[in-house]
Amino acid sequence: MDNIFKLEFTVRDYELDLQGIVNNAVYQNYLEHARHEFLKSKGLDFNQLHIDGYDAVVIRSEVDYKKSLKSGDTFFVETYASRESRLKIIFHQKIIRTSDQALIIDAKIFAACIHNNRPIEPIFILEKLGLV
Amino acid sequence: MDNIFKLEFTVRDYELDLQGIVNNAVYQNYLEHARHEFLKSKGLDFNQLHIDGYDAVVIRSEVDYKKSLKSGDTFFVETYASRESRLKIIFHQKIIRTSDQALIIDAKIFAACIHNNRPIEPIFILEKLGLV
Amino acid sequence: MDNIFKLEFTVRDYELDLQGIVNNAVYQNYLEHARHEFLKSKGLDFNQLHIDGYDAVVIRSEVDYKKSLKSGDTFFVETYASRESRLKIIFHQKIIRTSDQALIIDAKIFAACIHNNRPIEPIFILEKLGLV
Amino acid sequence: MDNIFKLEFTVRDYELDLQGIVNNAVYQNYLEHARHEFLKSKGLDFNQLHIDGYDAVVIRSEVDYKKSLKSGDTFFVETYASRESRLKIIFHQKIIRTSDQALIIDAKIFAACIHNNRPIEPIFILEKLGLV
Repeated sequence: MDNIFKLEFTVRDYELDLQGIVNNAVYQNYLEHARHEFLKSKGLDFNQLHIDGYDAVVIRSEVDYKKSLKSGDTFFVETYASRESRLKIIFHQKIIRTSDQALIIDAKIFAACIHNNRPIEPIFILEKLGLV
Repeated sequence: MDNIFKLEFTVRDYELDLQGIVNNAVYQNYLEHARHEFLKSKGLDFNQLHIDGYDAVVIRSEVDYKKSLKSGDTFFVETYASRESRLKIIFHQKIIRTSDQALIIDAKIFAACIHNNRPIEPIFILEKLGLV
Repeated sequence: MDNIFKLEFTVRDYELDLQGIVNNAVYQNYLEHARHEFLKSKGLDFNQLHIDGYDAVVIRSEVDYKKSLKSGDTFFVETYASRESRLKIIFHQKIIRTSDQALIIDAKIFAACIHNNRPIEPIFILEKLGLV
Repeated sequence: MDNIFKLEFTVRDYELDLQGIVNNAVYQNYLEHARHEFLKSKGLDFNQLHIDGYDAVVIRSEVDYKKSLKSGDTFFVETYASRESRLKIIFHQKIIRTSDQALIIDAKIFAACIHNNRPIEPIFILEKLGLV
């Protein structure tokens, strides 16, 4: 699909745990960074949105951990967005190991937009994401 | 329920992001630490299990983010385990803010046990967890 | 010394690296959290200071790593402050393992206070720290 | 200098703290990752060394924090090694912002090599680093 945003990473040793594999929580970091870069590729800056009073917040995550990443692995995160309902966006994200194209993580991240402490339908964001 | 294990934490400032709230990935850290302490309370040591060749691995997580934690908040994680199938255990975990008992995070963490690179039915673990 | 602030911690497994010991960077987290709690004990809130336009920033750190912490270790951080010069404060911090009182980390953290992007002599902070 | 190893990074938003700048501890992560990649460029794999029973450990760090990195900044870490004494190596590391070549961090990291719980003079490592 043309709309899938890809971002490449390399595992850093401080991300490994005592099992010698990337710690679970670190995958959330990879996914978050990929979402922010995805937004940036659409002309949306997460930090500027915050300064402007619009906070994108994760309200639910569903993550399947298929395989583990190890020291030195390179991988990429694929991201695209769809609309779940008036107030919810879903980010569909996969983490794929570069060497053998193995699926490592398959995730759905549900997000909402908060303005003045209330969920809003973020029309200008949806437009940039092509979801209106 | 008698079987619910509670562990108390305080938010540390390095866990906050630029929105001034605890970063999403950090909740996975809280949940993992609570699971390991829960196991310890049942006589199971995650690290010793690893040394003995048994690795508990997360295979899926479903996490609802209800509210956010802020600087200085104290909270506790409630954890109990149930059996999902022959090879899967579910850890049911809630993060609750101490001050007003607000539900912050509601999570189901699906885990399996790996021995010699293969999923096994970890009888001695299930026995200690009272799941046999 | 009466002025030494002590804060107790337990190592969390996600803080370990593949050597099975606490990763170096994590000690900076422990030290930072201890400094913020030390300030709080003196009536100074790091986050409130930030909101009020005063940012305490670390300008130099000198850290000796004496021994390593492992899974399950409990330890405490000792913190006290002294004045280095008109614009600099030093936080003297030690990390000590509870079980045998072994010195794990010996650190000097040099900090300054920034207001409107300029270093200032933070009189009200120095007063609360008893350094005027 | 020909021997300086350069590695480029981009700030990730989860690395920012509530001041909107990269948290202090995160710089240690950047420096560690750059050291490991530097070693790799010399034919030394940190993880393989660990498996073979040789652990490189940081024994002291001296870090000057000159400026802060913000969301979206790209930067590079410069690393080279020198010999301090029979048992100590120093990694000299600078973090430099790409956009204006501003010096962000200036660090000296003192390391030793442990084998069978004892510090040793790691001849084969020193040879690969050109320090014999």
